[in-house]
Amino acid sequence: MDIACLLEEERATVEEALDRFLPAEGEYPARIHEAIRYSTLAGGKRLRPIIALVATRALGHDAGRIIKSACALEYVHSCSLVLDDLPSMDDAEYRRGRPTTHRVFGVATGILAADALLMHAFKLVADNGVESDADGPRIAGAIRELATAVGSFGMVGGQHVDLEVAGRGTIDPETLEYILSRKTGALFVVSARIGGVLLGASEEDLGSLSIYARNLGLAYQIVDDLLDVEGDPDVIGKDVGKDAGKNTFVTVHGVEAARETARALVHEAKSALDRLDATTAQLREIADYCLTRSL
Amino acid sequence: MDIACLLEEERATVEEALDRFLPAEGEYPARIHEAIRYSTLAGGKRLRPIIALVATRALGHDAGRIIKSACALEYVHSCSLVLDDLPSMDDAEYRRGRPTTHRVFGVATGILAADALLMHAFKLVADNGVESDADGPRIAGAIRELATAVGSFGMVGGQHVDLEVAGRGTIDPETLEYILSRKTGALFVVSARIGGVLLGASEEDLGSLSIYARNLGLAYQIVDDLLDVEGDPDVIGKDVGKDAGKNTFVTVHGVEAARETARALVHEAKSALDRLDATTAQLREIADYCLTRSL
Repeated sequence: MDIACLLEEERATVEEALDRFLPAEGEYPARIHEAIRYSTLAGGKRLRPIIALVATRALGHDAGRIIKSACALEYVHSCSLVLDDLPSMDDAEYRRGRPTTHRVFGVATGILAADALLMHAFKLVADNGVESDADGPRIAGAIRELATAVGSFGMVGGQHVDLEVAGRGTIDPETLEYILSRKTGALFVVSARIGGVLLGASEEDLGSLSIYARNLGLAYQIVDDLLDVEGDPDVIGKDVGKDAGKNTFVTVHGVEAARETARALVHEAKSALDRLDATTAQLREIADYCLTRSL
Repeated sequence: MDIACLLEEERATVEEALDRFLPAEGEYPARIHEAIRYSTLAGGKRLRPIIALVATRALGHDAGRIIKSACALEYVHSCSLVLDDLPSMDDAEYRRGRPTTHRVFGVATGILAADALLMHAFKLVADNGVESDADGPRIAGAIRELATAVGSFGMVGGQHVDLEVAGRGTIDPETLEYILSRKTGALFVVSARIGGVLLGASEEDLGSLSIYARNLGLAYQIVDDLLDVEGDPDVIGKDVGKDAGKNTFVTVHGVEAARETARALVHEAKSALDRLDATTAQLREIADYCLTRSL
């Protein structure tokens, strides 16, 4: 199957599940559930759950067994977008071509919807696959990894540092790498690992998947920054030029270095798969896709 | 031991653990960890972790085994206070006699610190007591209960409805009960249950603890509202009269009905303990304390 078809097929699976696992439209308290659904079911590439499903299959497991946890990753991602867009953070007006959640539902409901999404994610991971006593410690492990990836040493920490350095001129490369690896990288790493953590994989294989995902996450973010500079808004579905004045890989290192680094990172990501005792063709294709969507 | 001494002793245990389980002062990113510690280590009765420890001991278990989860409950509570105080919510200036977290650290850092606290709580529950494979499903169960208690059908939902009805005049008693049982009651219920969920208790005992905690939580909140009307600010450590115009049990039902209801709820809470196969003296004393701190 070619990569576009693969991604489209996985995306359709994820899309259906994302809808199904959320509280229904109109369920009390209605307005917050409306905000949750508005922010989450607004389209998107669904790359994190897709990576989770594909990596699980690569390890020889039935990907359907971790569909709840795959969706949890997207709910967490959606939570982070709602928070990033808040007036006190990026103060964004549009997301995926629609007004941002807080502009439609108010700031308070935006914040509460984001936290509700986070809680829903943890509930789903806890629900996922308790089929025998032996699964239990694995669920605890998955919860621990997800909480760490989101918390003050992960996504939240990255967002905090990103806001802290904003408006202070160009930042040093180490701080930029810190921000990227936490804001984007941490959740990519959990996405690649969660199937193996829940259903069983060797430490070696999990380690290789971590390296794959860390490099892929950085490459993905750099490509995103490149698209902001040179992308076609009709194709990428959001405004371009919004990063002007922000600290991105492109503003810090320039377009050429960004392109080269993205290529090198994807190469690194794929090299890590060489050490993996698994069927890695689809993971490689995803890595190539992340690169070629812009270059 | 008399109840004041018991509470003071448990509080000291909790206080030490709350400090120990948080990232250290100065750990990178420093400012967010400072905000986390500022909001959480500012004193407080620590009632939720104390209930968790006392209930665990009542069930015949070593309370020390769930100390991480007991602290997790306080981190969640602290998260909820930081969020409640935000400009977009209650817009509070002071909490426990000090400027609120967002006033010291900014709104964005306040929101991120709250989410980091939430993540830290889940990590600690996942860390708690994985001593054998059989503990695993229990941890998943505890995570599920906590996530549900915090999410859109719990604390977050209660806060949402509370904000939604604010300024719309007096609300109906059912909506008030919804708000109280979610905003305060849900976390009390998890507090009473978590030791039994993690270390083993019968469904019957867990059910009785739920009834105890639900009634106690409501009574506690009503007493809090009473103290706002008639308390001595020097004794209760926060401003009084701040609830004027808000929907509380006292503004909806009046002082006399509030007193009577609090008494009846504490009676209900203690009656539920009659059905419990456990040593319930301390749980009863806590219930009485919640009442007598005002009446």
